[in-house]
Amino acid sequence: MTENHLELIRLINDRIEQLNYGNCPNELYEPIKYIMSLGGKRMRPLLVLLAYKLFKDNPESVLNEAIAVEVFHNFTLVHDDIMDNAPLRRGKKTVHEKWNANTAILSGDVMMVKAYEYLLNAPGDLKAILKSFNECAAGVCEGQQFDMNFEKLEQVKEEEYIDMIRLKTAILLGFSLKLGAMLAQADSSDADLLYDFGVKIGIGFQLKDDLLDVYGDQAKFGKQVGGDIISNKKTFLLIKALELAKNEQLEELEHWLSLEDFNSEEKVSAVTQIFDSIGIQQLTREKMDEYFQQGFEALEKLNIDKAKKQSLRAFAEYLIDREK
Amino acid sequence: MTENHLELIRLINDRIEQLNYGNCPNELYEPIKYIMSLGGKRMRPLLVLLAYKLFKDNPESVLNEAIAVEVFHNFTLVHDDIMDNAPLRRGKKTVHEKWNANTAILSGDVMMVKAYEYLLNAPGDLKAILKSFNECAAGVCEGQQFDMNFEKLEQVKEEEYIDMIRLKTAILLGFSLKLGAMLAQADSSDADLLYDFGVKIGIGFQLKDDLLDVYGDQAKFGKQVGGDIISNKKTFLLIKALELAKNEQLEELEHWLSLEDFNSEEKVSAVTQIFDSIGIQQLTREKMDEYFQQGFEALEKLNIDKAKKQSLRAFAEYLIDREK
Repeated sequence: MTENHLELIRLINDRIEQLNYGNCPNELYEPIKYIMSLGGKRMRPLLVLLAYKLFKDNPESVLNEAIAVEVFHNFTLVHDDIMDNAPLRRGKKTVHEKWNANTAILSGDVMMVKAYEYLLNAPGDLKAILKSFNECAAGVCEGQQFDMNFEKLEQVKEEEYIDMIRLKTAILLGFSLKLGAMLAQADSSDADLLYDFGVKIGIGFQLKDDLLDVYGDQAKFGKQVGGDIISNKKTFLLIKALELAKNEQLEELEHWLSLEDFNSEEKVSAVTQIFDSIGIQQLTREKMDEYFQQGFEALEKLNIDKAKKQSLRAFAEYLIDREK
Repeated sequence: MTENHLELIRLINDRIEQLNYGNCPNELYEPIKYIMSLGGKRMRPLLVLLAYKLFKDNPESVLNEAIAVEVFHNFTLVHDDIMDNAPLRRGKKTVHEKWNANTAILSGDVMMVKAYEYLLNAPGDLKAILKSFNECAAGVCEGQQFDMNFEKLEQVKEEEYIDMIRLKTAILLGFSLKLGAMLAQADSSDADLLYDFGVKIGIGFQLKDDLLDVYGDQAKFGKQVGGDIISNKKTFLLIKALELAKNEQLEELEHWLSLEDFNSEEKVSAVTQIFDSIGIQQLTREKMDEYFQQGFEALEKLNIDKAKKQSLRAFAEYLIDREK
């Protein structure tokens, strides 16, 4: 993150602190304040502002619209955490754990309404903005449904996985950038290139997530390294390993996947060794680089001053290099 | 219902049948088709069209916008049914029973997005329409939260109950009518009067529901008469009874409320007798009439030809007289 990025994130966090989503009944609005206060990278509103700044100088004027995307993102986290039965989010209790599932459903629903609310005063073409947002929002739900479907499938193909993370994660990054361009009333060709850039680095971002879960530095990572291996999560790494493993390798991998009782450390170590022997880390890194590269190519085509693009390039590089 | 109403409902149902909410993944979109196909009175889209027809002659041109409200309403049913643990909806399995809670959460979320989607091509002032819709949507969630809160409270006051049903049920009827006026680009004073009419008859509608649950004719009602008594539901009838019952009456009522094991028929019969001895049916009927009367007064003030108002008056009378 550059100093410029951090300054924008301060703006975003200040505005989030000032927002009043509603007061009564308290049981409905307290969880919204809670989840929004847990922090996070604020990547999505940052991307809105970075894209806006490519074309206009007053990002503070579109802060509410940027935060709309963060509220929507947090709504998906609240509902996804119920579905995934997740106890923790950003190291704190999830909403359904701290309150209950009903509260998490209903507070999430209001968050979706608030996301639309914060878009309503958008400069630019409101109808076009909401049309893009709806398409993105429905896509994110489709991605979550595919992700849940995959849990029950024996086999998931690489392209199915990439399409799932495109929907579940990447298109919201793409939309954030496109929104910034639309708010600045930029040309639609530039808005589309920014969308494309966002989707490509979003896919790269998720592949990096998959990598970090196995090969991250425990001291820096924040979550338990190997969590995906322990839970048999069908990440890019596991999908490729199942595709490429042969004979005894494949047997051993399937053995570990089939065990109901196991020592976590042993399983993580054994599966990581199989990954290593097939070169999964390298393969994933190459795939990730491929998507980031495609993102940079979209950025190149953008019809603006090269120096201005540096903020987005720097952001993508931060995503590539991040260790948590 | 008049022939005119039934004709509009046919239009609505035909359009609903034609709609394609999305296809892939099937697990996400199939529940939407299912819940939307279960029928129901289609009151809300009907109100949109009736209000529109006060000002313009081509209701078929705003069918999608009318259906947006029905999709939103069905989204709230899908999520409420999870929260209320309800097995049946319109005599068929609820979405979370037929599939599971996760599917019901996620399909509901997409339905909310689709509701916004179907409003996007609205003639008239899109921003004003969405502002009203957002306010209504957040209010409906507030009403549901109040309703859930009430379950855990010892005592609920009459005015708290009226405010809860206003939010949970009535404002969506009000919004439906206001939307019709806004789509027809009617004066905002007329739109506001129609909103007021809708809220008032919406409160009356819910009081009628409470009445029918105890005093309905089992053969016509469709649901189990006495269901609210069996589950100790804090309806207007029970709230007033707890407020007005004295000495032995109150003791007996509280006794029945406190029992965990009981014969349902006996409980329904005993509690109904207490209601009868305090005159609860008459009291509720008077309160209901009061709200319908207030609704008619708002309708009177509407700045349009008296004959045109007849369709709305007839609809309100149908709500007053209905037996299911």
